[in-house]
Amino acid sequence: MNADLQQLIDRIEPIDGNAMERAQRRLDSLTKPQGSLGRLEELAQWLVGVTREERPRLPRKVVFTFAADHGVAAEGVSAFPAAVTPEMVKNFLRGGAAINVLARQAKAEVVVADFGVATEFGDLKNLRSCKIAYGTANMAKGPAMTEDQAHQAILTGAQLAMAEKERGATLFATGDMGIGNTTAASALVAALTGAPVEEVTGRGTGIDDEGFRRKVNVIRQALEINKVDAENPLAVMAKVGGFEIAGLVGVILAGAATRTPVLIDGFISGAAALVACRLAQPKPVRDYLALAHLSVERGHQRIARELALVPLLDFRMRLGEGTGAALAMPLLDAACAIFSEMATFQEAGVPEKSEPASSAT
Amino acid sequence: MNADLQQLIDRIEPIDGNAMERAQRRLDSLTKPQGSLGRLEELAQWLVGVTREERPRLPRKVVFTFAADHGVAAEGVSAFPAAVTPEMVKNFLRGGAAINVLARQAKAEVVVADFGVATEFGDLKNLRSCKIAYGTANMAKGPAMTEDQAHQAILTGAQLAMAEKERGATLFATGDMGIGNTTAASALVAALTGAPVEEVTGRGTGIDDEGFRRKVNVIRQALEINKVDAENPLAVMAKVGGFEIAGLVGVILAGAATRTPVLIDGFISGAAALVACRLAQPKPVRDYLALAHLSVERGHQRIARELALVPLLDFRMRLGEGTGAALAMPLLDAACAIFSEMATFQEAGVPEKSEPASSAT
Repeated sequence: MNADLQQLIDRIEPIDGNAMERAQRRLDSLTKPQGSLGRLEELAQWLVGVTREERPRLPRKVVFTFAADHGVAAEGVSAFPAAVTPEMVKNFLRGGAAINVLARQAKAEVVVADFGVATEFGDLKNLRSCKIAYGTANMAKGPAMTEDQAHQAILTGAQLAMAEKERGATLFATGDMGIGNTTAASALVAALTGAPVEEVTGRGTGIDDEGFRRKVNVIRQALEINKVDAENPLAVMAKVGGFEIAGLVGVILAGAATRTPVLIDGFISGAAALVACRLAQPKPVRDYLALAHLSVERGHQRIARELALVPLLDFRMRLGEGTGAALAMPLLDAACAIFSEMATFQEAGVPEKSEPASSAT
Repeated sequence: MNADLQQLIDRIEPIDGNAMERAQRRLDSLTKPQGSLGRLEELAQWLVGVTREERPRLPRKVVFTFAADHGVAAEGVSAFPAAVTPEMVKNFLRGGAAINVLARQAKAEVVVADFGVATEFGDLKNLRSCKIAYGTANMAKGPAMTEDQAHQAILTGAQLAMAEKERGATLFATGDMGIGNTTAASALVAALTGAPVEEVTGRGTGIDDEGFRRKVNVIRQALEINKVDAENPLAVMAKVGGFEIAGLVGVILAGAATRTPVLIDGFISGAAALVACRLAQPKPVRDYLALAHLSVERGHQRIARELALVPLLDFRMRLGEGTGAALAMPLLDAACAIFSEMATFQEAGVPEKSEPASSAT
């Protein structure tokens, strides 16, 4: 690991347990039976712990939607042609994609960055140009990228996030676009967890049975040829990852380093979260994360289990882009509002729970 | 059943299958793999089917939070004293309760109505006065209300909802407040489904083991003494229901009669939904409903199964008031936005899925 990445990781501290205890006491004073808002109360407490703010609010939410191409797409692992990646980037910039619609609903901004699309975009308004290369190399034949490129992608993602933080971002969310990237994500999850490839591989944008068998074989081949070693997550990232995934690892590490809650989208984002947590060990990156939804991609369940994160939504989505994260944002806003705006029993003059000994329990 | 109620039920028609098919075709033309937004797509389709609108929108969402007291509270079935009911009504009117906070977040209005609180409120601003009586009678000793009162409560709820519809309401949501009302809801569910009482009874606002055993016994006694008969849902409602629950039955029937989607909150609302569906049989009331969340109250699962409705959220909530419904509203707004605002493949010039025969699948 290079010095800049190490420095970023060194900044990560535990979330604030004392602040969370104070938050619990406030939650228990609000006009509702204790704990009766369930997960909403836990989210409020978590946001206090992450941000150390007395009354957290999320006025400026940013979705980082990073795009890149994957050399492994040449193996026929996707139902869509690679030409879709640049066209969807343009769709993001015009505001017509699902992530644009859902981010508008959530009052979030979308930062669209090219981390390695195999197209020369020229000067496109609002596209952040972070291209590491014109797509990764084909992981089925050798490493997808060099370790230098992996460092560069991670640090570039972190810098983008830090810059948004300086402009007032209060929540980071992760998103992705890249034909072939579920193959990379499955390879990362298999490599880092030791799970059998077929248990962490799904149908991506919608391949058929034959395509699925091919995809599993391609991933097995990539893991073998690259001699992946879970003890070296940076090398795993370089060998079977993707540029957009590495960029998201940077966003996640930057979130943890700057006490910013990070909302993780689906399978690709989840793979990035797993890499970030492993890279930073023993730093508690996981505690800065919320899992927005459970993807249809079966490897996502494995990620949720590894990170001990319970998804906020289970909507059978499998689109990526950050769509699940944007959809879940109002839940976090609601948690903040409950914490800040509800009346306490004292303020409202509402009688509290009867004493256990009372005859009226 | 009286003539007014029968007339309301006669107005209910099936949701529009043709419109739903057209909606599916539009969803499949949008720039995403088919079906990749999962449940969000199903919600969009459902909203089209219910409203018959080409591009449904939910600009005016109304939460009906109905309050009433329950004679059965005298049996010690709640962890909170009955005095909490009127104080929480005042809290709703001041805007300090959880439902106020969550409705503000969702840009929804809250209609607070007194259907039978055991207090004289006098003239409170914004409180809809629909008092049927000063609380129900104790169901453990006889019927909670007369059938006339049940009719009156249902029709009053329906009228309130119809009036909001005329003022432009596009979504109804149900909510409740009433110390003792989980006892009534459990009794209703047990009576209408034949489920064993202990399987549909929970801990309400938080009773202990002894309180729970007492609650189960009280419900058993109420079912026995009142000779409930599932074939006569109106009589069941009168014998072991509550005024606020009957009012919500009216809201739900009015929703189905006016092609208005109805978002069902937790256990009390779910019991009202079950009664409404049974009352209106064979009219397809269920098709107008979405279940906002799965409550901690165990009887809620039974309701979800009976109505074949899958909750949108599973947040371990058990507060009522309409809080789960308000929390789920942004999910419906998001479904509308996806349906109306996303670019089609044609508009965006994005290549569609490869043909199965292609070498690049």
